[in-house]
Amino acid sequence: MAVYTEVSDEELEAFVAEYDIGTVIGCKGIAEGVENSNYLLQTSNGSFILTLYEKRVDPDDLPFFIGLMEHLASQGLACPTPLHGRDGKTLRELCGRPAAIITFLQGLWPRRVTARHCAALGRAMAELHLKGQSFPHSRPNSLGLGNWRPLFELEARRADEVKPGLAEQLRGELDWLEAHWPADLPTGIIHADLFPDNVFFMGDRVSGLIDFYFACTDFLAYDIAICLNAWCFEPDGAFNVTKARLMLCNYQQVRPLTADEFRSLPTLARGAAMRFLLTRLYDWLNTPPGAFVKRKDPMEYERKLRFHAEIGGPGAYGLEIGPVSAGDC
Amino acid sequence: MAVYTEVSDEELEAFVAEYDIGTVIGCKGIAEGVENSNYLLQTSNGSFILTLYEKRVDPDDLPFFIGLMEHLASQGLACPTPLHGRDGKTLRELCGRPAAIITFLQGLWPRRVTARHCAALGRAMAELHLKGQSFPHSRPNSLGLGNWRPLFELEARRADEVKPGLAEQLRGELDWLEAHWPADLPTGIIHADLFPDNVFFMGDRVSGLIDFYFACTDFLAYDIAICLNAWCFEPDGAFNVTKARLMLCNYQQVRPLTADEFRSLPTLARGAAMRFLLTRLYDWLNTPPGAFVKRKDPMEYERKLRFHAEIGGPGAYGLEIGPVSAGDC
Repeated sequence: MAVYTEVSDEELEAFVAEYDIGTVIGCKGIAEGVENSNYLLQTSNGSFILTLYEKRVDPDDLPFFIGLMEHLASQGLACPTPLHGRDGKTLRELCGRPAAIITFLQGLWPRRVTARHCAALGRAMAELHLKGQSFPHSRPNSLGLGNWRPLFELEARRADEVKPGLAEQLRGELDWLEAHWPADLPTGIIHADLFPDNVFFMGDRVSGLIDFYFACTDFLAYDIAICLNAWCFEPDGAFNVTKARLMLCNYQQVRPLTADEFRSLPTLARGAAMRFLLTRLYDWLNTPPGAFVKRKDPMEYERKLRFHAEIGGPGAYGLEIGPVSAGDC
Repeated sequence: MAVYTEVSDEELEAFVAEYDIGTVIGCKGIAEGVENSNYLLQTSNGSFILTLYEKRVDPDDLPFFIGLMEHLASQGLACPTPLHGRDGKTLRELCGRPAAIITFLQGLWPRRVTARHCAALGRAMAELHLKGQSFPHSRPNSLGLGNWRPLFELEARRADEVKPGLAEQLRGELDWLEAHWPADLPTGIIHADLFPDNVFFMGDRVSGLIDFYFACTDFLAYDIAICLNAWCFEPDGAFNVTKARLMLCNYQQVRPLTADEFRSLPTLARGAAMRFLLTRLYDWLNTPPGAFVKRKDPMEYERKLRFHAEIGGPGAYGLEIGPVSAGDC
């Protein structure tokens, strides 16, 4: 739940007047997302999202994110598109923060993920990866392999407050990941945060992907690994192999995985679990326990990490290496 | 900021299907209000507010609140109206909570209150009071004079944590209020929480009053007293007599105050300050300091209380007893 910046009516009206979208008839802070302030803006022309970029987003990265959304939308991907003001600009300032108005996407994000959602997600993610290939800019993953150890060291002394022995366990896991991380897989633009609340559906159909503010250049299969963790475990912690199989199978209907990518999935999924474990650990140790914001349990990702470490190979995700047929999906 | 209950897409679609408002195309939690969970619901027919009533609202009071909104809207007051389902019902259950879909009101609440807002508020509040007169139900004010001392006693031992001597000061003030509270002023339906975030404007015109979940039967002039505190002090604590005069003057263009009401205003304003001081004190002492929710400073209301206690009479609000002319407004 996040609205960090209160926008006054005068400031809002002046801001909206820079665009050709009619007059303001309503503007409500949205209780979703944690990085930025988001408002659902209603004007005489329709609904839009007004985003004020808060301090967790580096302003120097904004042209990349905005440019990426424009590129993907122009390629036909359903994702928010920044509006151009009368002066042609997409980014301007509001209440001392960078701000943009982006298009409103229809749909709901799934509170309860079904196998059908996972199937549709697979296709949508592969389309994102293909359409990102022609985007001419790149951005290093600031939460990638090389960033995990420094992030871990920040909280290493306190990690055992969460579970005794956790610090040692994570240090060992980091050693393993650094030694086994794949060196050469297909790279490109990944979303890097494709959790269910960033994917809108109308029924079983994906109606849009949102929140590209972690997007970066990395192994494409790492995005799949993030989704294996975010979509294919049940609330009780059990891995749902049907969801994984449908996600991978439908992904490959659009973009087949190389044998190397497929074999690397368990390692990538361990790394993806480490990435979210570490950021959740940091937030857990730095958010007061009585705080109103819901802290996300880092140990959920410790269990996911162990799952991927213990399986024999990518076959545990429900598919074998090699071409898939539509009949499998 | 408040969304306490997450509504799943299946539950939402089943709920909306009880109404004749088309299909869901979006539903976003609103980061406003602290009592209930509110969603801005968009369907193929338009925009609506979906409210789930959380534990701070007594379910037995809901028919009163819902009935009041319907009554006021039917009298032409711009306020949210509950929708009737296909079965005729306005209240049903969602995620184990009472829930209703209400109409969406256009407009923005003023982040920076101007004298013109106060003038328009005066008229709108008087219209609310007149239109409430024909509502056949009543509800005692559960945060009225008789409730302040018990509320105070809950936190009396800890009040001095906020300011040394505060407990003694409040006890003395309660004695004074109980001894001097007016006995017999015009009563009726009051809003009882008419803060700027509950009044929508389009430009200088009031486009709607919202959030009737404190509405009750009490002295009509007590509502004015609440607004003197909520609208007529500047952020630096200074009382703005122009705002008060315009509010009172415009109120009386619609509903003239009796001489008794006018004379009682400083006492009512002291009481209104006490009411918000006490609930803020309670929340202050029971919300962890690092919590994400913005705690409202109880001492803001201690200063307002002293202002009303120290003025010589209602003339300090910028008007004398007696008829006002439109020229004064």
